[in-house]
Amino acid sequence: MAARALTGATGRPDPVTVTAHYLSPGRPGGVRIVTQIIKEGKRFATGTATMFAGTRPLLAVLGTLGDLSQAEGPELIEGAPPELPSPEQCVRVQPAGTFPPPFMGQVDLRLHPDDAAFATGRQSGQPLMRGWFRLPGAEPVDTLALLCAVDAFPPTVFNARLPIAWTPTVELTAHIRARPAPGWLRCRFATRFVSSGFLEEDGEVWDSTGRLVGQSRQLALVPRG
Amino acid sequence: MAARALTGATGRPDPVTVTAHYLSPGRPGGVRIVTQIIKEGKRFATGTATMFAGTRPLLAVLGTLGDLSQAEGPELIEGAPPELPSPEQCVRVQPAGTFPPPFMGQVDLRLHPDDAAFATGRQSGQPLMRGWFRLPGAEPVDTLALLCAVDAFPPTVFNARLPIAWTPTVELTAHIRARPAPGWLRCRFATRFVSSGFLEEDGEVWDSTGRLVGQSRQLALVPRG
Repeated sequence: MAARALTGATGRPDPVTVTAHYLSPGRPGGVRIVTQIIKEGKRFATGTATMFAGTRPLLAVLGTLGDLSQAEGPELIEGAPPELPSPEQCVRVQPAGTFPPPFMGQVDLRLHPDDAAFATGRQSGQPLMRGWFRLPGAEPVDTLALLCAVDAFPPTVFNARLPIAWTPTVELTAHIRARPAPGWLRCRFATRFVSSGFLEEDGEVWDSTGRLVGQSRQLALVPRG
Repeated sequence: MAARALTGATGRPDPVTVTAHYLSPGRPGGVRIVTQIIKEGKRFATGTATMFAGTRPLLAVLGTLGDLSQAEGPELIEGAPPELPSPEQCVRVQPAGTFPPPFMGQVDLRLHPDDAAFATGRQSGQPLMRGWFRLPGAEPVDTLALLCAVDAFPPTVFNARLPIAWTPTVELTAHIRARPAPGWLRCRFATRFVSSGFLEEDGEVWDSTGRLVGQSRQLALVPRG
């Protein structure tokens, strides 16, 4: 929503790089978003968006937006989309009270069975979450909806030897490389470093043609049992 | 400088996660920094800092700051500091006109010989930059100076089969995990994805005790020859 407000304020259709700092947990209800444009350039525009519930700030966003319709250039790809069983063979994440959260009703997310077993008490031991993402009814995923994809998956550390508990995000940055082709997105999230009470979670999103369309990294607090 | 302004504005000593969007190239001379606090919480404070040269915005920063003096928690480390020859056996980067830039006189940076040969026309073929970092005269590196470390190295893609030319940073995010111990820092920067005219550069900074003290990721534009 905050990134969408920035596309409106700047007239640029695509979030190229967006950083959100998570200030307070959201609750159902209306929000107010205040945008401020810092620079409007030829290729990009940069601005902030702050989301409030009443006077309480929920989210602070800094974003640079542009137009990715003509994105092209040399290619160097060290990596590949994750191998996944078909969406039908994966585990659909459905909302159920507070966990999984109600937001899961807004997306169609299917976890790799190996990474979903934490829900039945069998953590894989690898801080990894892989799965498919699309919008309900196969509604097309634009570059704004990609921002939902990188924040929709359960925390990677649910598969580490750590408590399965609230893992508050401090900050999330997404880089959008391209507009996704129609179809399911393949997503992969992994954590390499848990230390000093923090962990990072790195994400990759690949479209149905095998193209990398987005990268993400978030900083989160280690859950406490 | 912008992060330092935020530590002053918030009274919190350590940048925990800082994102900078690079709006215009800086030139020698004075700058003005405008800070705005968005939230002051118990553990963290969040705010923006915008740097101007006259009325021209140079840099927009969003940061969350805290106090890392007591940072602790469970550890999971999948990675290790880069193997490097001694600083004396590495290649010191010295300022020379516009490239390397004058900023290099403010830091003591020693590149792994394998990664430094681009300067003599021999690109390694691996988009990788490894080396040592410290401040001149071995001045202690605090968490603010760590932010210089993650932005001081030559672009990784100088070692890829791409033109060695200006590689403008669009955005850089640093996560600071801990206050570094005294001594040289080991740094490693790598790129996995060059596509659609963009590339990411992921960095790790390790202190003299072998502890990960910082991570970074930047989005940059592919250089044009």
